[in-house]
Amino acid sequence: MSKIDTIQLAHGGGGRLSDALIRDEILSRFGEGPLKSLPDGATLPKIDGELVFSTDSYVVKPYKFNGGNIGNLAVHGTVNDISVSGGIPRYLSLAMIIEEGFPISELRLILDTIKTSADECDVKIVTGDTKVVARGQCDSIYINTSGIGEKLKGFDLGKHRIKPGDAVIVSGNIGDHGMAILAAREGINIDNNLVSDTASVQRLVQSLHENFAYAVKFMRDPTRGGVAAVLNEIVSDTSYGIELDSVKIPYSREASSIAEMLGIELLNVACEGRMLLICDNSVASDILNLWKNMPEGKGAEIIGYVNKEPERVSIKTVTGGRRLVDVPTGELLPRIC
Amino acid sequence: MSKIDTIQLAHGGGGRLSDALIRDEILSRFGEGPLKSLPDGATLPKIDGELVFSTDSYVVKPYKFNGGNIGNLAVHGTVNDISVSGGIPRYLSLAMIIEEGFPISELRLILDTIKTSADECDVKIVTGDTKVVARGQCDSIYINTSGIGEKLKGFDLGKHRIKPGDAVIVSGNIGDHGMAILAAREGINIDNNLVSDTASVQRLVQSLHENFAYAVKFMRDPTRGGVAAVLNEIVSDTSYGIELDSVKIPYSREASSIAEMLGIELLNVACEGRMLLICDNSVASDILNLWKNMPEGKGAEIIGYVNKEPERVSIKTVTGGRRLVDVPTGELLPRIC
Repeated sequence: MSKIDTIQLAHGGGGRLSDALIRDEILSRFGEGPLKSLPDGATLPKIDGELVFSTDSYVVKPYKFNGGNIGNLAVHGTVNDISVSGGIPRYLSLAMIIEEGFPISELRLILDTIKTSADECDVKIVTGDTKVVARGQCDSIYINTSGIGEKLKGFDLGKHRIKPGDAVIVSGNIGDHGMAILAAREGINIDNNLVSDTASVQRLVQSLHENFAYAVKFMRDPTRGGVAAVLNEIVSDTSYGIELDSVKIPYSREASSIAEMLGIELLNVACEGRMLLICDNSVASDILNLWKNMPEGKGAEIIGYVNKEPERVSIKTVTGGRRLVDVPTGELLPRIC
Repeated sequence: MSKIDTIQLAHGGGGRLSDALIRDEILSRFGEGPLKSLPDGATLPKIDGELVFSTDSYVVKPYKFNGGNIGNLAVHGTVNDISVSGGIPRYLSLAMIIEEGFPISELRLILDTIKTSADECDVKIVTGDTKVVARGQCDSIYINTSGIGEKLKGFDLGKHRIKPGDAVIVSGNIGDHGMAILAAREGINIDNNLVSDTASVQRLVQSLHENFAYAVKFMRDPTRGGVAAVLNEIVSDTSYGIELDSVKIPYSREASSIAEMLGIELLNVACEGRMLLICDNSVASDILNLWKNMPEGKGAEIIGYVNKEPERVSIKTVTGGRRLVDVPTGELLPRIC
């Protein structure tokens, strides 16, 4: 029999080929710790205090893009969901649905990326699952990661704490991830300068916790639907609104030029390594200074303020006018994460 | 606009339609507790002691079958993985990948089933994710559940504790789930008497913990690869083997007749509501009596014993001979869970 270099249905069947795939590709990378004996579930040490639990499935198309692939996206996405919920991510699960015929060399690339980014984020892959479906029953590979974190004491997060005058801060350029995916998908040549922002925001959250926990009111990573969707969700069912200042919103030159060319509003485009923060205005410039000295926050800006206009997100335009920032009904960019 | 009765790409896009789907279908069923405010991650109360963490993606085809659908399968599968790891399941995540065009009425059926079975298993759905992919990029619906459980004190589980003379017990008929899926897929008419065994084994585990924790050495639910795969995994890299007694192994009449017709070995076929147990022989008949008085264990049998033949799983045939119980290399029944 010649060497098998693509995924076969039998790799997911529970027999010898499944076993070989798990041992060669999973245990070789993640086999230290609870995964070692391949139990049905990982036994984890006691966590003192509340837990944070989050899940996301990743179906990004294409599965490789400038700045990474579905692997680091799947680590960062769940790490960030836990982080902005006020937790320190500790453990991840890794469940893959792979299409028959997927090259094993590509699977290795993805798993290497997962290993590297999990190490960087200081989270452990402790349990997993691999399913294989026939050709045409998924598109290359889909990955689910779920994560358990340890809730940080001291944060008191929630829409109810937000009040007019609070500052809205974003940690860096908006929309680079979504635009990088679009560029990869459509084969748009941008001299490779547009890189997905996929990254962990954990250190940004940690820095807030150490210095400004009491003044932080809301954190969220603006993924699907972008900054516009998150801000509209925040103001819904409240007595306040948010006004952005268009000249303050950070965009990369590369994302802007593609967005302009295609008529896309970057406020609706996903980031995968940025966070939105609403905090008491008295500490806003201190937080900005703190973040600007960290690699993950060097592009941070105060992009707007909470006002008294109920449930309304607006933006001051360059010419001094104002317009509403709405959430699109339809689908702008499917499968960006 | 006419009423939307199938899943659209925009249901996964992060905009208004996504929001409506989550509110109408998810929050209406699971909105009590941590999911209520739709945070990125659920904050959960402190768990005293070790945690058990498990994940599985479900890609069963067809997604409906006699005895349930992908919904209760996804609850039971993860509940069982936590249970046989010696944990009490507490919290589940629910991540769905849905194909564009999937009927919303079918989604409701699945979510109702998830709600019912989660309630029955006393686990809470606390966090989730919904992705939509275009037609032909998945097959109807795939579901991932990950779960957190509370490790029971008192169990000491592991292959290293198994020794010759120990009993091997199964909690009920083998292979009903896999055969029910096959029947549904191939349109085999079996008068609807063959029902998937999908169910929780949590109460079986709990009963062992209360009475026999010290004597329990290994627990596993025989899903993909069936009983044969689990037993071969147990004996691998050990100095012992297992001999089964073919007349003791419980099969349903319906599964047997389909298996015979198609030439399938039921020892290789998945269950989704059974457990395999290896325990000290001194308590084997007591456990059998205990289980036989529980609805989930009424079909339980002692199907074999651990012996001194290293890494070998064998079976005593009806005629008194012996043969090897091997694990198939290839894929018998793709997408049975």
